[in-house]
Amino acid sequence: MSRIVTARPLTRDAFAEFGDVLDTDWDNHFPINNGKCERYHGLARAQAEGPNASVQLSIFRGQPYEFPLKLTMVERHPFGSQAFMPLSPAPFLVVVCHDGPEGPAEPQAFVTRPGQGVNYPRNLWHGILTPIGESQDFLVVDRGGDGTNLDEHFFDEPWEIRLAE
Amino acid sequence: MSRIVTARPLTRDAFAEFGDVLDTDWDNHFPINNGKCERYHGLARAQAEGPNASVQLSIFRGQPYEFPLKLTMVERHPFGSQAFMPLSPAPFLVVVCHDGPEGPAEPQAFVTRPGQGVNYPRNLWHGILTPIGESQDFLVVDRGGDGTNLDEHFFDEPWEIRLAE
Repeated sequence: MSRIVTARPLTRDAFAEFGDVLDTDWDNHFPINNGKCERYHGLARAQAEGPNASVQLSIFRGQPYEFPLKLTMVERHPFGSQAFMPLSPAPFLVVVCHDGPEGPAEPQAFVTRPGQGVNYPRNLWHGILTPIGESQDFLVVDRGGDGTNLDEHFFDEPWEIRLAE
Repeated sequence: MSRIVTARPLTRDAFAEFGDVLDTDWDNHFPINNGKCERYHGLARAQAEGPNASVQLSIFRGQPYEFPLKLTMVERHPFGSQAFMPLSPAPFLVVVCHDGPEGPAEPQAFVTRPGQGVNYPRNLWHGILTPIGESQDFLVVDRGGDGTNLDEHFFDEPWEIRLAE
């Protein structure tokens, strides 16, 4: 089996089987504040379970990665979701895997367009934050609390993730 | 009493009595992902109470306001917090009020520097989203669920909010 994966453009339809896309291409929107603001409502819901769970806000400042990327590991969070919203108009790589009989199945890769974020639900295997092209800041909404909220899976052989030409 | 309020620069110290500032000027940060990412951890915690409560993510697309601003109303959310994180490097106005014996006390006004967001805790009186200078998108983290999660207070006379020269 080839271990090369080419990233596709991130769309809500393509990503629906994995998690939520955070962008304004969303039907549930309506004006508020006397029409001065449009609310794109309920793009995702945060999950927080386990001991002393809360939903917390953090900022991640991530350095860019080189491509093709050698993907050696994916992780998941058994107690809660994790959302990444970019604070600058630059793309990042989204890698996710369905859960297979012996850990994560074949990785699926997506490239965001500027302005898109993602929310990974509880227990979805995903790659670490992977900015493309430049250092980027992200608002991260995830679960705080006690207990071990991290599973890591290291692949026997790395995958190679390519950006489309 | 003068009804003119001049907005101050938003700092964590100045805003501490009201809510949370979302920026990287924060001591609790540490490297993750083999040093490729710096996590500015736990800047704020979302609150969600009341019937069928959840923490939800939305995008607000707000139009800019003219200054001096006539402030006629503030609002608060009895069931949860509400965070606003700008998705472009532009400032917005933050207006908050302590709770007084007859509703909100005198407004306090702050101007963010680009890259700063805020989190309003449950029941803090605050002005509506007020971009400065240009249309802006914000990631909003607030409470979903049933029940009435909005109190509005209309001032007998409007306040005038000025930006510092």
